[in-house]
Parts: sequence; C-alpha cells; structure tokens
Amino acid sequence: MDEDFWAVIPAGGAGTRLWPLSRRSSPKFLHDLTGSGQSLLRATWERLEPLVGHRFLVVTGAGHADAVRRQLPMLPDDAVVAEPAPRDSMPAIGLAAALLERRDPDAVLGSFAADHVVTDPDAFRAAVGEALVLARRGELVTIGITPTRPATGFGYIRQGASLGVPGAPSGCRVEAFVEKPDAATAAGYVADGRYKWNAGMFVVRAATLLELLAEGHPEMARVLRAIAAAPERLGELWPTLDRVAIDHAVAEPAAAAGRVAVVPADFGWDDVGDFGSLAPLLAATAEVGGVRVVTGAEHVLAHDATGLVSAGSGRLVAVLGLADVVVVDTPDALLVTTCSRAQDVKKVVDALVEQGRSDLL
Amino acid sequence: MDEDFWAVIPAGGAGTRLWPLSRRSSPKFLHDLTGSGQSLLRATWERLEPLVGHRFLVVTGAGHADAVRRQLPMLPDDAVVAEPAPRDSMPAIGLAAALLERRDPDAVLGSFAADHVVTDPDAFRAAVGEALVLARRGELVTIGITPTRPATGFGYIRQGASLGVPGAPSGCRVEAFVEKPDAATAAGYVADGRYKWNAGMFVVRAATLLELLAEGHPEMARVLRAIAAAPERLGELWPTLDRVAIDHAVAEPAAAAGRVAVVPADFGWDDVGDFGSLAPLLAATAEVGGVRVVTGAEHVLAHDATGLVSAGSGRLVAVLGLADVVVVDTPDALLVTTCSRAQDVKKVVDALVEQGRSDLL
Repeated sequence: MDEDFWAVIPAGGAGTRLWPLSRRSSPKFLHDLTGSGQSLLRATWERLEPLVGHRFLVVTGAGHADAVRRQLPMLPDDAVVAEPAPRDSMPAIGLAAALLERRDPDAVLGSFAADHVVTDPDAFRAAVGEALVLARRGELVTIGITPTRPATGFGYIRQGASLGVPGAPSGCRVEAFVEKPDAATAAGYVADGRYKWNAGMFVVRAATLLELLAEGHPEMARVLRAIAAAPERLGELWPTLDRVAIDHAVAEPAAAAGRVAVVPADFGWDDVGDFGSLAPLLAATAEVGGVRVVTGAEHVLAHDATGLVSAGSGRLVAVLGLADVVVVDTPDALLVTTCSRAQDVKKVVDALVEQGRSDLL
Repeated sequence: MDEDFWAVIPAGGAGTRLWPLSRRSSPKFLHDLTGSGQSLLRATWERLEPLVGHRFLVVTGAGHADAVRRQLPMLPDDAVVAEPAPRDSMPAIGLAAALLERRDPDAVLGSFAADHVVTDPDAFRAAVGEALVLARRGELVTIGITPTRPATGFGYIRQGASLGVPGAPSGCRVEAFVEKPDAATAAGYVADGRYKWNAGMFVVRAATLLELLAEGHPEMARVLRAIAAAPERLGELWPTLDRVAIDHAVAEPAAAAGRVAVVPADFGWDDVGDFGSLAPLLAATAEVGGVRVVTGAEHVLAHDATGLVSAGSGRLVAVLGLADVVVVDTPDALLVTTCSRAQDVKKVVDALVEQGRSDLL
C-alpha cells in the first residue's frame, strides 16, 4: 500500500435516467442496483480499499452526507466532505485536492465516481497502479476503457504514443479528449482501436491538479486552497465558485498541451447511466421468466417477456408479451418503458419538474 | 311498457382476462370499466329499465348478491337470486324462467349479460322490441350483432330467411349457431353477410324455454321448477344440477330443429372481454399523452405511448415509448402487457392459481 495515495470519491448526480429507482433524495450511488449485495458507493469503497486503506475523501451533497457516513461507517468523520451546493466535478475534486495538498504536499489522488460498476476489480487496481506511477512523475493520468460497443453515451480519449515508463508499461500520451460521438463516428472509433471510453477517472498529484487548474481558473484554485486552509469558510466561499466539469477545466486543455497520460484498461466498467445499461449487469441468477430482476424477484411473474423489472413496492408485478421492457415499481411511482428508450427517462423527470411534483423527484 | 316482459341479468363470470381490474371477489360487472360513470351492471339495468320497469331478476353468485343489491337498490329484494355455486348459464337463466313461469305463465324473459357494453341503447331497445313480438309467438329469439370486424373471440349465428312477422320486420330464421372461427373463417363470415355475432342475448317465453330445456335435459327442467315451487330447497337441489351453457342445452338443438329466430341489429355491442376490446371503448376525453385512461388520469404521465392505462393505486404511472401497451396498476398487483396479448392475461391468472395466490385472484 502506498501511503501517499488517496481515493477521492465524488458522490453526486441524481441518476435522473434511473428514475424512479434513483431520486434526488436517494441518488443511485446509495443503491444496490445490480444485485451485488452492496450499494454502488460501498462497492466503490471496497474496490479501492486494498489500494488506499483508510485514505478516502468522499465529496457529496450536504443532503447525502449522513447517508454516506451510514454506508461507510469505517471511514473517519472528516473523510466525508459535504458540499453546500452542487458545483459540478471541478470544485468537488479540486477541494479534495486542496485538502490533501495541505495534509501531504506529495499526495496523489485517484478520483473515481461513486456510482459506476467494475466487474473485474483486480484488473482495475492493476490499471490504477500503473496510473499511480505516472502520476508521481507529474502527469495528469486518466484511465481509458477499451470500448466493447460503439457507445454514443460516453466521451472518448484518443490515445497517442507509448510513454515507455517503467512500472507503467501501458501508459500512453493522450492526444485529445473527444465529445460523445454520433453512431457512425462511434463505430469508426471502435474500428480505429486508438479510442478509449472516458470514464472520468483521474489519477494525479493533488498539487499538479491545482497547478493545472490555476492555469485556466486561477481564482477557483485560490478559493479552493483558501477553503482547505480554513474549512470554516466553506459555506461562505463555496457559492462563489463556478459550476464547471473537471474535463473542461483541466483535462481538455492539459491534453491539448500534451500533458495528459492514459492507461488503457479493460475491467468491465459501466457507468450504469440508464436502465438499458443496467439490464446486462444484473446477474443471470436474477432472471424470472425471461426478465432480469433488480429487486423483489418473489413478486415478479413474467411470461414471454425480456428486459428489466424492479418490484420494489411489495406488489405483484406481472409482465406478459413484451420484449426489452423496463418496469420499475416503487411505492409512490411506476415507470414502464423499454431498454431502447432508457435515455429518455430524463424526459419523464423533466415533466415531473414542470408539474411541480418535487415529491417524486 | 309490456307487463309480461321481464329482464333477466345473469351476473356471473370473473372477467379473468381483465385481471387485475376484475377479480373473483369483485368481478367486472361491478366496475365502471369504460369511464361511463356507472358500473357495467348498473348500465345494463339502465338500458333495460325503459322496457321492463321494475321487472328484473338478477342471477348472481352468492358472494356477489350484496354488492348487486347495493348497486341496484331500486330493485325489490327478491329480484336478486343468489346461486349457491356457479353452474354456467343454463341453470342460472333456467331458474329465472322457472320463477317467472310461476308468477305469470305468459311471462317473456329477455336475458342479457351484466357485463357487456352497448353504445346505442335506443337501437338496442328497438331490436329487443322486435324480439319480444317473435317470442310471444313461441320462438326462441336471439339478437345477432352485425360484425364490425372478423372477430375470432365470438361465436356466430348464420341467419336464414325472413320470417315476415308484422311488428318484427328484421326477424329471420336461424340456420345454425357456429363456434368461434379461426381468422380466415371469420373473414369469410364477415364477407358473406349472413353471419352475426352471438352476443348470448335471448328473448323467449319462460314456458317455452323450459319446454325446450325439458326436451334434452328433462331432469334439469324438473329440478328448476321444483326450486321455483319451493325456494327453500335451493341449497339442497342446486348442487345436483350439471354445469351447462344455454347455447349447448337449448339454443343449438333448437336451431337445428328450425325453432330459433334472430333479430339482426347494430347497436355498438361489445363484451369487453379483454383489455384489447376495452381500449377503444374508453372516451377520447380520457386520453393522456396518447394513452386511454381507465381511471386515475391525474396520476398518468405518458410520452410517445399508445394503449391503455389504469392508475388505480394513487401512485404516479409513467409510460414512455411503448405502442399499444396495457398498464393496469392496482394497490396489490400490477399488469404490464400489450393490447395484442390481451387474450393471454388468463395465463397470468392461471399462474397465480398454480402459485396459490388466491389473495390476488
């Protein structure tokens, strides 16, 4: 175990496209969506614990800090950082970097979302180990996921020449981060071989990250360091920060300057962004009459059906003659759609917002 | 109004293919399925009242007699006859005939199921008026519905020559009752023009019906008359009766002997047998985002969807991107299927029977 290495877990995002399982009041990282027996947050902790021991910082919304502490009772109290308001990923990860920089000027952080799935944790840790070697040399390191399909829902990383660094044999230069492609472009990326999925994983020295941030957003870097120096000023200073994603604030400009490395890897990653991506992650043992069941298998009765069912209200859920259907039953809301329309669940949530149904969000 | 004419309403059948709206404990005739504002039973009463006034006999299961009386409080207490156990339509209608024969040897009964829909009650009553003329002459009269599609879920009546009876200008001889056809045969029937849907409506003198019954089932006719003479023996004698449908016991043999008349008619009839037939009966005003709503429109949120939704548990029901879907939400059970699979809802109910889930039946 490397005493300079810290896991940072940004635990944010409502998981809108997983409504009504995921809610603002109970976002997806708090749920065991895949039937693994533990929540996505807890699984993220378990995946990282062999690398970092107790050295965690979880950055989450103030409203979720207690739930995070309940799910991770083994963490010291100051391992959970509560954001007064959401400001996207750069302030969240940047604050973690500023806090760590004060504890240890040589600290390296690995930032990994609380709500992703990794099916091969050993391969994940091997990739992070290579990234750590590169990060200690001053690189901003990302982990690029080998695409398994021409996904249009992820950004891509174009991989350049090998860096040839001992201890990090897979490490390569990043030529560019590219936006979510259309289907034809995505197919081209997969065929090309140099394109990896951008899973939003970064390994970097805390000080390096803040230096890169200061180049484009000097005021944000200054404020984050001020909060770290005087945590009692969090409530006062946090609202002055802009909402900005780490990709835009740091990763893209650094890549353009040839200062980002990538460790390509393949460890069964998924961001569980919608019900379409959740369905194949459910265990085959959780199948009832052709449908995969998230929860409540004893309440599911399916006939001539495929897709995904979550029977979470205790009521019987009977599904008959539908392919790739999504049925999510909760005590106060029911969603019926298809895997292919899973991305559009956001439209349902938008409609609820318009109708002022904050009780259901 | 004709003082010899009585309405008999067999109120039986669980409406299995309308589960989970229709239950054994609360069958479909007790429900307002179409959004008309009244139950199918109550609408049946309202359709017949101008013809028969207070002269009703409703034959129903013992378990439903109280519910029937609550829905039809205007009827005298002895207008509701409670069957100790289901014995199909012949004993039910035959008992009504025996009871009426004792009250008035010239009584004519019109038997109309409690759970059908008629959208043009005036045309219905005109057809029944013609049937009454023929019934008084000793005919067993049925009303044949002009087919509006090549339905495979109904039996058909092949119409013969006109009877030329004054006051019943539409009346024709019935050549035969034919079984539910396959799709090709049904298309041929519709093209032929002589075939009408058998809606199970019979108008006949009570004495004539019992005479026809006595020809093939003399013991049943004797027992039914014995019960009518001594109603306290109902519990003792009823279990001795065979289960048999009026079509098989009386109508088919009588038709073969040239003793059945038909009044063809067209009054927007449907037996509301499944959700596929229910959907088009729902008012266009009950549409929310493309789907027709049985109940709970304020709880329905639909987007890019067509079909039928019943939001009967008070929970939000969101439907996204499904055509001809059927979503029936109740407090203890949820059904998700399609209009085209509506006939197979029976399989779900069969599975629940197998699982011993009588609480949900």
